[in-house]
Amino acid sequence: QDWRSRTKVEIFQYVVLKWTLALLIGLGTGLVGFFNNLAVENIAGFKLLFTNSLMLREKYYHAFAAYAGCNMALAIAAAALCAYVAPAAAGSGIPEVKAYLNGVDAPSILAPKTLFVKIFGSIFGVAGGFVVGKEGPMVHTGSCIAFLLGQGGSRKYRLTWKWLRYFKNDRDRRDLITCGAAAGVAAAFRAPVGGVLFALEEAASWWRSALLWRTFFTTAVVAVVLRGFIDFCHGGKCGLFGEGGLIMFDVNSAKPTYSTPDLLAVILLGVIGGIFGSLYNYLVDKVLRTYSIINERGPILKIVLVVAISLLTSCCSYGLPWLSQCIPCPADLGDPCPTVGRSGNYKNFLCPPNHYNDLASLFLTTNDDAIRNLFSSGSDKEFQLTTLLTFFVAIYGLGIITYGIAIPSGLFIPVILAGASYGRLVGTFLGSFSYLDTGLFAILGAASFLGGTMRMTVSICVILLELTNDLLMLPLVMLVLLISKTVADCFNKGVYDQIVKLKGLPYLEAHAEPYMRNLVASDVVSGPLVTFSGVEKVGNILRVLKITKHNGFPVIDEPPFSAAPQLCGLVLRSHLLVLLKGKKFTKQRVRDASDIMRRFKANDFAKPGSGKGIQLGNLDIKEEEMEMYVDLHPITNTSPHTVVETMSLAKAAILFRELGLRHLLVVPKTLERPPIVGILTRHDLMPEHILGLYPQFDPHRKKP
Amino acid sequence: QDWRSRTKVEIFQYVVLKWTLALLIGLGTGLVGFFNNLAVENIAGFKLLFTNSLMLREKYYHAFAAYAGCNMALAIAAAALCAYVAPAAAGSGIPEVKAYLNGVDAPSILAPKTLFVKIFGSIFGVAGGFVVGKEGPMVHTGSCIAFLLGQGGSRKYRLTWKWLRYFKNDRDRRDLITCGAAAGVAAAFRAPVGGVLFALEEAASWWRSALLWRTFFTTAVVAVVLRGFIDFCHGGKCGLFGEGGLIMFDVNSAKPTYSTPDLLAVILLGVIGGIFGSLYNYLVDKVLRTYSIINERGPILKIVLVVAISLLTSCCSYGLPWLSQCIPCPADLGDPCPTVGRSGNYKNFLCPPNHYNDLASLFLTTNDDAIRNLFSSGSDKEFQLTTLLTFFVAIYGLGIITYGIAIPSGLFIPVILAGASYGRLVGTFLGSFSYLDTGLFAILGAASFLGGTMRMTVSICVILLELTNDLLMLPLVMLVLLISKTVADCFNKGVYDQIVKLKGLPYLEAHAEPYMRNLVASDVVSGPLVTFSGVEKVGNILRVLKITKHNGFPVIDEPPFSAAPQLCGLVLRSHLLVLLKGKKFTKQRVRDASDIMRRFKANDFAKPGSGKGIQLGNLDIKEEEMEMYVDLHPITNTSPHTVVETMSLAKAAILFRELGLRHLLVVPKTLERPPIVGILTRHDLMPEHILGLYPQFDPHRKKP
Repeated sequence: QDWRSRTKVEIFQYVVLKWTLALLIGLGTGLVGFFNNLAVENIAGFKLLFTNSLMLREKYYHAFAAYAGCNMALAIAAAALCAYVAPAAAGSGIPEVKAYLNGVDAPSILAPKTLFVKIFGSIFGVAGGFVVGKEGPMVHTGSCIAFLLGQGGSRKYRLTWKWLRYFKNDRDRRDLITCGAAAGVAAAFRAPVGGVLFALEEAASWWRSALLWRTFFTTAVVAVVLRGFIDFCHGGKCGLFGEGGLIMFDVNSAKPTYSTPDLLAVILLGVIGGIFGSLYNYLVDKVLRTYSIINERGPILKIVLVVAISLLTSCCSYGLPWLSQCIPCPADLGDPCPTVGRSGNYKNFLCPPNHYNDLASLFLTTNDDAIRNLFSSGSDKEFQLTTLLTFFVAIYGLGIITYGIAIPSGLFIPVILAGASYGRLVGTFLGSFSYLDTGLFAILGAASFLGGTMRMTVSICVILLELTNDLLMLPLVMLVLLISKTVADCFNKGVYDQIVKLKGLPYLEAHAEPYMRNLVASDVVSGPLVTFSGVEKVGNILRVLKITKHNGFPVIDEPPFSAAPQLCGLVLRSHLLVLLKGKKFTKQRVRDASDIMRRFKANDFAKPGSGKGIQLGNLDIKEEEMEMYVDLHPITNTSPHTVVETMSLAKAAILFRELGLRHLLVVPKTLERPPIVGILTRHDLMPEHILGLYPQFDPHRKKP
Repeated sequence: QDWRSRTKVEIFQYVVLKWTLALLIGLGTGLVGFFNNLAVENIAGFKLLFTNSLMLREKYYHAFAAYAGCNMALAIAAAALCAYVAPAAAGSGIPEVKAYLNGVDAPSILAPKTLFVKIFGSIFGVAGGFVVGKEGPMVHTGSCIAFLLGQGGSRKYRLTWKWLRYFKNDRDRRDLITCGAAAGVAAAFRAPVGGVLFALEEAASWWRSALLWRTFFTTAVVAVVLRGFIDFCHGGKCGLFGEGGLIMFDVNSAKPTYSTPDLLAVILLGVIGGIFGSLYNYLVDKVLRTYSIINERGPILKIVLVVAISLLTSCCSYGLPWLSQCIPCPADLGDPCPTVGRSGNYKNFLCPPNHYNDLASLFLTTNDDAIRNLFSSGSDKEFQLTTLLTFFVAIYGLGIITYGIAIPSGLFIPVILAGASYGRLVGTFLGSFSYLDTGLFAILGAASFLGGTMRMTVSICVILLELTNDLLMLPLVMLVLLISKTVADCFNKGVYDQIVKLKGLPYLEAHAEPYMRNLVASDVVSGPLVTFSGVEKVGNILRVLKITKHNGFPVIDEPPFSAAPQLCGLVLRSHLLVLLKGKKFTKQRVRDASDIMRRFKANDFAKPGSGKGIQLGNLDIKEEEMEMYVDLHPITNTSPHTVVETMSLAKAAILFRELGLRHLLVVPKTLERPPIVGILTRHDLMPEHILGLYPQFDPHRKKP
């Protein structure tokens, strides 16, 4: 809005700053991603090495105590951070970011302390052996970094304050956070293109091609940063971290050749994967509802819940491998077998030399290593059917009950783990019928689960491609994703959409619901409409601001300023507060726009960061000032978007959503009536609100 | 609009049909892509084999005559098709598709005969040795197939006619064509994900996430079809076609390790590539303007121009290798050296045994093979500096003068060729300073040229990734693309945008121009406004339709139907024509909506395909009917999108563009005036139009 007053220098500043911020977001997120990786690998590595060394000395109870103790300590740390410091940091974070980018303003989601808890909570959670991932937290972390940079640090840090005024609006802030989300995925999976696509497909609600370029730049920075650190660590300077390149699960050595029966197997895999995926969503939803009852009772109960899940996970990981028998190592093998170290494909558990325990190879390692083992090709016989079945059931169950406890927890890794074990299970089962490597089946299984839960297509495809570096599988992966998404869409919505809805965030869907076509805009306008006249009494404004929670008010010009009452525009609550604080009041009811304009600069009305706005209570209006008048014209947006009251609600909803509006004025069709019918806001367009007013359109309503 | 009248069965039909069409588009485009490939490889292969065999018998003049003669025959065939059958098929086709998806209705672009010419013209052109590619034509072909399927064949083919009525609207048709464009890229480069991203980044103007999924499905089908055919051809059943897998230029064997000096080299490469790229655009623009003068003089001159360019190309390809000396084959080589066949890295030209001619290895082969040779890794010394320089200059020049002649010609391959030779040139030059393989330099050079001309980022990145299967290069490729795009953006616009502008297509940019912020909506409304009253005289309508070319007219309700003149809505020219054809006229001026509604079905007003609409001349209105009245209310859209006249033009332009409108009504702010100020259309928002009205805002205007 204030663009037209900007000079060329200011525009240049703006552009430079925009790119600098994108660069900083990339650097910051890359750094955090690397730090996260490093910390997790080292903590989890030492934990596993210690457990292993105790087991080698046959002190099994000590080993379990050490293992479970480490896990529990980490779990308590993570849970305490979440419960006491920043409850908003629990969970994945992707639903919150998605809702924010849809226009839901909930500042605490992206506050600095959330960032802090998210980073450390995620490290503790992942290192603590939970079946959680770090990609959701990384997305949230990236978004927090972007938000923090966009508002120039948290009040204290005033270095670039003056320049940053350009970013005090919804659009620029959203753009930055989109970059942050993309950077998060790029850092978590080392998948720069996948990150861009994730931001495009799942996170962002509005997309411009300029944004594509900016997110691309950010993720490129992340990739360069990560690569630099990985190169640095190859010398062994980073403790237990230091293997693995830019590609996390490289399976490029396998050359897939497939025939028609394989294709049928793959289709079946996709169908079943879709069913399991939607079942996963259903169960996660149920578990979340249960947990929310427990979590509401206070932080102590939250921590107790986390400890319980941690104990259960430790028991599963340590106890279940005892059920499996020792298997002799395959003869012709390049890798060491059995391995006693932190990671490796063939784990010595309790086995004699040259034997390994296949269930331990999956359970007693980090999640990343378990995925790597499942994806490994050329080892068709490594895991037994019963092993895979046990692991699949355990991980599927643990994944479901772990999401929702008070630690930062990503959903990608649990889903990939469950999907990969399921795929490998199917692959081993079909071993004799199919030419496909079981490692490839594991990848396809992971794809089918991801498609079934997340319901993304292109981004998952590219992320999997970047994770595994296996371009030749692309057609099969695409096929599986399409099938599993289609199947799962028959049952319920994607897991992130479900969580958004569960959290009660007013998320605007891109398409209008069918029943909206049978309603018109004026049907859903709610509440008593509060309007101001062009020159309004101060007391009146204060009273209205106190008793309502609306953020926008229509301004009506009345005689003597115009011949008949006529719509002047829309004024925002935040602008009114700034105006009142300025105290440019007049005794008479006159227009004194020029005077007010001199008093304020455009920046005074910029959108404040979280918690920085003027509060109603801070205003110190004297009694005599209450009877004075103030001219609202200078701060009124005189050309708000309007629709005629008879416009189909579907059309109005699409207008609202496409333009990213916060208020949409509904004007009357005929002239004899007052010049405004009402205001549509985000809440008026929510299905719950509309179906509450018109229950006859509810598709799930029971017929009387 | 007529959704609300649809039953559940109809919606089911619609959904099934939508996916069936996407499937058919994928199948069709995949088939055409494979056929194109097959034909080109066979025609060009036999041509080269024949030339080679003559040369082996030392009949050099015969060989040249055969080579140039073949090329010329193919060139004449392609040019004749373009000049006489479908002039719209000349050129790349991507700009036209882009404009169509932006909302520019130009039916001839996607007509069946364009499709026919595009397919065969492209085969002849590419096989005829021109420096042209097939990806632009493939995109156009895919879009034509989509358009054709969407309107159910060309009038004759009425099989699915009834079902297809659902697709007679702008949105569904655009969606189908977007799928077609994605399928085209997928088929041309065997790059399914790249195709989706191309459609997203370059082709489409409006994007919904549902579309992402649909294009993804389409390109998956293309990938499966192509893979099936390639498997089929591996047995040698397809003549000279049959090598190569799904990845066209596989360089996966090279493992890049790079250090800081390499990074500097890469940055330099990007900067120079960006400059060359924008220079390419500038020169193409100049050449196109020159050619358009020649091409306007009739088809004969078009063909002459094509023949001239063909001769020049033949001379270059056959003549320049004579300048190069024979080089002894490297000792430790797996490939045969020299090769006498159709393709191969080391071409025997006139050389003694165990020697090869490096310039002939690039010139006397198909464009695809030349790229493969340039990208090949582990052969640092294969091409001499002078060879690469000669090839680069020749290809850069030929590429520029070839685009714009009357054959279907893609821009990707020429740009990749020039970029790859430039990159390899730099790589060979820096050979001693850098650890990077020269083949990787060639890829980076191609990326820098693509970034510099096309100005896409993510899609080029993914296309290159899918072309070369080299994930480890990703950070470097991203870096080069960003740099070259940034550099090139300082000079001019992307090549497709330039061509769109050159062709005078009214393309709406996504962002508003800065000067639009200083104007309001009513400033640019043009022309005398023609309105109808709610019940209008037939003669009046006919007269207005004859004298104006507007497509939409505001309808005003006047007394006695309303108290004061008031805006009723907007009526479309095409709907008026249908109404007039129906001849439901009344003697008196009364409203008889119900009567008219009974007479017409919603489908009668569906948007007709190309050339199928009712023409004004076809109406047979009698003299006495001219004095009768017709009620416009049933066909009036009573809730068109409106803006207040004082709304900033920038805001109005964004509204127009985001919602994909064709008409935007401008209503007055005050009530005393007539109820409508004007209509904004696409043409009113063109910079040329606005700057014509307000030259003071023109940034390029000379100060007086």
